Amino acid sequence: MTTEIELGRGKRGRRAYAFDDIAVVPSRRTRNPEDVTTDWSIDAFHFDIPVIGAPMDSVVSPRTAIMLGQLGGLGVLDLEGLWTRYEDPEPLLAEIASLPDEVATSRMQQLYSEPIKPELVTARINEIRAAGVTVAGSLTPQRTQELYQTVVAAGVDLFVIRGTTVSAEHVSSVAEPLNLKKFIYDLDVPVIVGGASTYTAALHLMRTGAAGVLVGFGGGAASTTRATLGIHAPMASAVADVAGARRDYLDESGGRYVHVIADGGVGTSGDLVKALAMGADAVMLGVALARATDAPGNGFHWGPEAHHAKLPRGRRVRVPQVGTLEEILYGPAAQADGTANLIGALRKSMATTGYSDLKEFQRVEVVVAPYDHR
Amino acid sequence: MTTEIELGRGKRGRRAYAFDDIAVVPSRRTRNPEDVTTDWSIDAFHFDIPVIGAPMDSVVSPRTAIMLGQLGGLGVLDLEGLWTRYEDPEPLLAEIASLPDEVATSRMQQLYSEPIKPELVTARINEIRAAGVTVAGSLTPQRTQELYQTVVAAGVDLFVIRGTTVSAEHVSSVAEPLNLKKFIYDLDVPVIVGGASTYTAALHLMRTGAAGVLVGFGGGAASTTRATLGIHAPMASAVADVAGARRDYLDESGGRYVHVIADGGVGTSGDLVKALAMGADAVMLGVALARATDAPGNGFHWGPEAHHAKLPRGRRVRVPQVGTLEEILYGPAAQADGTANLIGALRKSMATTGYSDLKEFQRVEVVVAPYDHR
Amino acid sequence: MTTEIELGRGKRGRRAYAFDDIAVVPSRRTRNPEDVTTDWSIDAFHFDIPVIGAPMDSVVSPRTAIMLGQLGGLGVLDLEGLWTRYEDPEPLLAEIASLPDEVATSRMQQLYSEPIKPELVTARINEIRAAGVTVAGSLTPQRTQELYQTVVAAGVDLFVIRGTTVSAEHVSSVAEPLNLKKFIYDLDVPVIVGGASTYTAALHLMRTGAAGVLVGFGGGAASTTRATLGIHAPMASAVADVAGARRDYLDESGGRYVHVIADGGVGTSGDLVKALAMGADAVMLGVALARATDAPGNGFHWGPEAHHAKLPRGRRVRVPQVGTLEEILYGPAAQADGTANLIGALRKSMATTGYSDLKEFQRVEVVVAPYDHR
Amino acid sequence: MTTEIELGRGKRGRRAYAFDDIAVVPSRRTRNPEDVTTDWSIDAFHFDIPVIGAPMDSVVSPRTAIMLGQLGGLGVLDLEGLWTRYEDPEPLLAEIASLPDEVATSRMQQLYSEPIKPELVTARINEIRAAGVTVAGSLTPQRTQELYQTVVAAGVDLFVIRGTTVSAEHVSSVAEPLNLKKFIYDLDVPVIVGGASTYTAALHLMRTGAAGVLVGFGGGAASTTRATLGIHAPMASAVADVAGARRDYLDESGGRYVHVIADGGVGTSGDLVKALAMGADAVMLGVALARATDAPGNGFHWGPEAHHAKLPRGRRVRVPQVGTLEEILYGPAAQADGTANLIGALRKSMATTGYSDLKEFQRVEVVVAPYDHR
Repeated sequence: MTTEIELGRGKRGRRAYAFDDIAVVPSRRTRNPEDVTTDWSIDAFHFDIPVIGAPMDSVVSPRTAIMLGQLGGLGVLDLEGLWTRYEDPEPLLAEIASLPDEVATSRMQQLYSEPIKPELVTARINEIRAAGVTVAGSLTPQRTQELYQTVVAAGVDLFVIRGTTVSAEHVSSVAEPLNLKKFIYDLDVPVIVGGASTYTAALHLMRTGAAGVLVGFGGGAASTTRATLGIHAPMASAVADVAGARRDYLDESGGRYVHVIADGGVGTSGDLVKALAMGADAVMLGVALARATDAPGNGFHWGPEAHHAKLPRGRRVRVPQVGTLEEILYGPAAQADGTANLIGALRKSMATTGYSDLKEFQRVEVVVAPYDHR
Repeated sequence: MTTEIELGRGKRGRRAYAFDDIAVVPSRRTRNPEDVTTDWSIDAFHFDIPVIGAPMDSVVSPRTAIMLGQLGGLGVLDLEGLWTRYEDPEPLLAEIASLPDEVATSRMQQLYSEPIKPELVTARINEIRAAGVTVAGSLTPQRTQELYQTVVAAGVDLFVIRGTTVSAEHVSSVAEPLNLKKFIYDLDVPVIVGGASTYTAALHLMRTGAAGVLVGFGGGAASTTRATLGIHAPMASAVADVAGARRDYLDESGGRYVHVIADGGVGTSGDLVKALAMGADAVMLGVALARATDAPGNGFHWGPEAHHAKLPRGRRVRVPQVGTLEEILYGPAAQADGTANLIGALRKSMATTGYSDLKEFQRVEVVVAPYDHR
Repeated sequence: MTTEIELGRGKRGRRAYAFDDIAVVPSRRTRNPEDVTTDWSIDAFHFDIPVIGAPMDSVVSPRTAIMLGQLGGLGVLDLEGLWTRYEDPEPLLAEIASLPDEVATSRMQQLYSEPIKPELVTARINEIRAAGVTVAGSLTPQRTQELYQTVVAAGVDLFVIRGTTVSAEHVSSVAEPLNLKKFIYDLDVPVIVGGASTYTAALHLMRTGAAGVLVGFGGGAASTTRATLGIHAPMASAVADVAGARRDYLDESGGRYVHVIADGGVGTSGDLVKALAMGADAVMLGVALARATDAPGNGFHWGPEAHHAKLPRGRRVRVPQVGTLEEILYGPAAQADGTANLIGALRKSMATTGYSDLKEFQRVEVVVAPYDHR
Repeated sequence: MTTEIELGRGKRGRRAYAFDDIAVVPSRRTRNPEDVTTDWSIDAFHFDIPVIGAPMDSVVSPRTAIMLGQLGGLGVLDLEGLWTRYEDPEPLLAEIASLPDEVATSRMQQLYSEPIKPELVTARINEIRAAGVTVAGSLTPQRTQELYQTVVAAGVDLFVIRGTTVSAEHVSSVAEPLNLKKFIYDLDVPVIVGGASTYTAALHLMRTGAAGVLVGFGGGAASTTRATLGIHAPMASAVADVAGARRDYLDESGGRYVHVIADGGVGTSGDLVKALAMGADAVMLGVALARATDAPGNGFHWGPEAHHAKLPRGRRVRVPQVGTLEEILYGPAAQADGTANLIGALRKSMATTGYSDLKEFQRVEVVVAPYDHR
């Protein structure tokens, strides 16, 4: 089904495409941006916009989770981050933003070695739920068995299991691995799980009963992952592959629609448009939201891989603050670089290409046209 | 008919080419540059050169429209620009050229919020017509119904409807959209309409009765459109596709030849040559003419998207002033960068490849040879 | 025969390759560099190395023509350059090397407007012949009829007709064009003619009776030609195409072998190796020899297109001086950048890939492996 | 079997891929890094890690050969380097690290002109063997006949013959070339030989009876080799081709498994992962180990081609010192750039893609996804 390239006598591989390699093209119909809807629903939960704040301490705090919910999206709190390790992480977030580069990694390793406190997990979830928005929290596969009962008891609406690569079939000789299928079947709460970056991996995750699959090699900039691990799953192809798995699983399961959520590589409104064009139902945003003046990162952005003890595959990076969370989502934009008014840009793009809802927009025509940043 | 690439299981797309990706190659015959003609006619109007000044305030004023006409080309006045909003825009043009970068966008948004005055529309058209050159003015699809009667009554020779993307089938729930087919049928004046960037979109525009179609995603540099909207229609492929629509429509209509005008991506004489080589009948020039010392932009260039209220997709840019409008078109060129003597370069290119007129030159051989600017 | 790419509905084109896009790969056999021969013969003339100095004032003077001959190669004097316009051009060459950038073009236009003096043509040719080396001089197609009798009477061994693009079929309404076939037939001296950059153009040149064909779009850096004229003939493909014409013409003519000489794009020993690998019999070097401390350009390099009156497509460029002409050809090299010991590198490359003479080396395996200069 | 591209009428070539052009992608299974083994055996010798220190004076001294052995890998001493020319090379290594750039090449040419002393060959080998690690030394094909008896008598475990390109069929008119087949047959010690970069060259080397084949164009950065010789064998394709030869030779020989060792282009853990993914059994590391604070190069790196008398194809380069040899192999890594914790990264990559040993990992899925370093 896919075209393989011969790399040498012993090896073949597919050409894979990044968002930068592709672009959306207009077709014969156009629409008014006002006639476009950006609605998205997963399980019983409805959202005005297909935007999920990534479970990273620089992006989602209880406060920004509530803001994102009120702005029509969803914020996922990292239940293994500072908010469940410390009573009051605000001073620590401020400290991280003030650290000189050379000590940032070691100080963050120190901060994140504080144990997770189940009572804080409960408290944070309660705080978000009290605001009346949809509540979502994330755990890594490694900590899920230890903490999920606390999380469910506290009352999350959506449960996110997110790791670098999460497979339906994890092999371990040292511990009984998480049986995702049984775990999800037993749980009352819908589960979003990932990252997965291939058709097969995603299809297996869909068969576990997940409500949504995160597409991507979650965590760490593509450049550092590639330099350290040699691994790279260019996102345009990864999203299309997983969307293909969604279609095949829909048939195989007799009608279960598993949502495909692009998680990684979406830094601008142009990337967001392309992720949806390649077949994503929604996008999980990290750096794009960390650029908010009211984001918890205070102008910095980092993921869990930045403070890995022996093999850091990322680092704390300074990000430009381009406006409030609301301005980043709804404008007005002061600059034409795709960092603000993400939803305005999405509407304009859908209108220009003649589509009125996100599901239809997945069929928009794209071209391969590698872009030279110069 | 076109070769599609599999981007992933769920998605296919064509490879699209920019002018930078291609080059013209000489064939077995050569000619004297003196034996080459660059004539171009559309409807009853004849031009010595296939060059149209873009309807942008930094490029075409009544004065430069007249100059372009006298130099053998055509200037299209933006009938929604400063010249129809203010009695005397010259001081405002000078002010725009003197604004610091940080306030340019907001001051321009202010200036362009002044209402359009129908009497100024009439006055500007009269001024150009009085000089004895072909008169052309442009409106956006949004303002066409409001203003076209004033424009036609004032006596334009060519009517241009130009928007980001103009389709023959615009869908709107808030207002009755412009019925292009009926509008063009009822009008006595030939209409040039666009931008369109695909075969299908262009074919539908041709069926409305337009005399010419603008090829491109009009307005905004490719880089910013791509970052904000995720949209990009590389011009070499877009021109070839629309030229393909011209050929098919010629057959379908029993002989109506709709002119294909490349509008975007033509910044140098090399680009101009390639646009014609890919099948364009003429080119609409923006930045290439804004570089004239006597252009109204006074060393700056901007389009309507630069002062969009909520989603600016461009900005006022400083451009090098390389010579008078006449030198830009006919030389002599002081530098070998393709910014001056556009027509001399076109003649040399046609002569070197052995073609004697523009219609023949559309058959010239091209190669794919991506160019590294370093 | 060639694979075409669809660029759009109305247009197809081949992918063309530059020397930078390809590389030679070793095969199963290796040899001692001492067992390799770099001999080359054209007509009755034999050379130790397949290197021709380009007819450019910065590269070949009577003195360097003699040096190149004594070093085993061939120098072609530009018979329309300073040496046939002035009794003593040495002070003028020194002046050109001392001009500030901003006045270089205009002063050179002035210097080259001095008329050509037939008696100087005779004197220069005599000077070279007196040194006992093979004598070669070049004219443009435009001046050939006016000056060839002087050139032949003075006694050149090889006659070079070199222009931007030379075709066997030049069309002109203002003057009787040079009938190459008749001209070459009537001449007693073997003729090398070009540039040609396609199979068809080269095949027609071969049919005129030429002893050699120059491959390339002679004159002007690829970058400026591409920006100004939109023309680019990537050299690896061009050489292979013309080598294909050589093979087909050999069959068609019942055994006449026309030499293929790469003229352009050969700046390093790596490029020289690749030109021969793609099928060239010899290379014509410009900038590679202008880097000699004893080259007439005194650390500068320019071609006739640099002082074109209305459409300059190049300019005087400063080049690093890397050693004497002898060191550039035979080493020792102080740096590993391919600018010196061109012949040593060629020998090493032939030995490493197991070939013992240049004709065999045309069959060496090459790969497409675009090179990133960073 | 391989897809060829038409470069022009006279020439075809394959597209070849570098490590930078490809990436490994995760599949449906994941594992614990603890369950992964990186064992490798060649002949009777077993190693914990598939890492060989390259025979270069900046990488392997007797001391670092012992350290590498104790850390689970193998160090190969260059038996034509400073250690067999001087009684005490430490001051000379320190001097090389202190030389200004402009005199480095000439001083190194001087230092390496000192004759090789057979008694020092014996002494160095004895020193390494006394430490109880596997002993390996390398000679060039040119010096093998002169010195191999000394080497074997001193008691090496593995004999390495390493040159720019080593073929099974070297042709020489000046000296009787080394008959590899007879030489290896007569020798009691297993031989690793290379570089080879194509299927055919490697297959012929395998037929000589070698235990391992080095893949690469040994010596000199790809960039300088390409600029000087026009030769480039992109490593991803070269490793796959030679792995293909291994498979075919395994069948042809009725079961002899010849080890494929990537030698060149492996500068980071990401490259190491990709080399194994393309089919290598082990990697030979130069610059990656020269970055150790305890490497003999003292922060500099050079190969034999850097002090070639007439055609240097490399130079002494300064390299960042990123940690001890142990930290480079096993971490912890302070930076996410792939220069430290090579084995930790390999384990993580294998675990993430679900493979438990190196032989299985050769089957991991790869994609073509050219990487933009910006």
